[in-house]
Amino acid sequence: MRVSALDEGSFSKQDRSALLVGCVLDENRIAGIVTSTVTVDGIDGTKQALALLRRCNDINLVILGSVSLAGFNSIDPYAIHTALAVPVIVANPQQPRLDEVRKALRKHFDDWQRRATVFERTATFRKMRVRGGGVIYYHAVGVQPTAARHLLRRLIIFGNRPEPLRVVRIIARTLSEWPFLQAHQVAR
Amino acid sequence: MRVSALDEGSFSKQDRSALLVGCVLDENRIAGIVTSTVTVDGIDGTKQALALLRRCNDINLVILGSVSLAGFNSIDPYAIHTALAVPVIVANPQQPRLDEVRKALRKHFDDWQRRATVFERTATFRKMRVRGGGVIYYHAVGVQPTAARHLLRRLIIFGNRPEPLRVVRIIARTLSEWPFLQAHQVAR
Repeated sequence: MRVSALDEGSFSKQDRSALLVGCVLDENRIAGIVTSTVTVDGIDGTKQALALLRRCNDINLVILGSVSLAGFNSIDPYAIHTALAVPVIVANPQQPRLDEVRKALRKHFDDWQRRATVFERTATFRKMRVRGGGVIYYHAVGVQPTAARHLLRRLIIFGNRPEPLRVVRIIARTLSEWPFLQAHQVAR
Repeated sequence: MRVSALDEGSFSKQDRSALLVGCVLDENRIAGIVTSTVTVDGIDGTKQALALLRRCNDINLVILGSVSLAGFNSIDPYAIHTALAVPVIVANPQQPRLDEVRKALRKHFDDWQRRATVFERTATFRKMRVRGGGVIYYHAVGVQPTAARHLLRRLIIFGNRPEPLRVVRIIARTLSEWPFLQAHQVAR
């Protein structure tokens, strides 16, 4: 099974853009890495994610830790599923807090209703117990819950975070902390 | 077992420096990444490698694909072993060709004898069969050959390249192909 996991690098609210990293794991081993950027608080998250995923060959599954991305940007898992015809699973040990996101969007953006759409569509999370007693919250698109749980169990090796998300997070954070990236590319 | 594997990124002879990447794997899972640069055809390989490895916490083993680095630069596994007090294994599916390196050093560098020292010290490679019929050539420092083979068998999961070297190679090549790295940092 080839899975592509996406994550953004570290960023601050002063940054114009954040690093976006896609990591392809084949049977939980790294097979490749793709990188791009995404606008902090922008509306290009889904577009940038799709462009990045199109550079990943032969993937069977896309996994996200969140639909939120780089502040108030977002990735729409339904759009990804429609475009690529692979299942998309959003999975996180923490329960997403839609109410707070909606409140913040309304406060900060005139186009908050459009921005909230992605969060509304993915508002329902299922809870799954994992080995060792932890839980994970997931929202699966293009795959039935039973099959999604089966996929997640194959991906969760340690703790309660799917391995591709653990790996892409390490890579994204490391890269975004490169001082010369911050100076030349990511900072405003 | 926590292993740090080093590799350089892609570079051309026109580049002043190449990306140097260290990847820490804990039981063959990525635990961290550190990055730096090394001078193409320079003599700072061991120094840069040591500085990078000192940023890797609690490693039990260092693994290199080669003592050659960024052209005619090199990493001295004996110096690494002395400084860090961990075993260092150089392991590669291809048999290193010391004669050619020595010939090239003599042709291109006045200080070829000093540069050749590392290659002379690591000139003897042992050959080990791996699962699936392949072979790997290794030179082990600070660990007996029997123990080195045991370590290598734990690290070789697919094919005949130890997993940490496979992973660090993917990461180093991906990163060094970032166009803005080439433009801002790595190119002369």
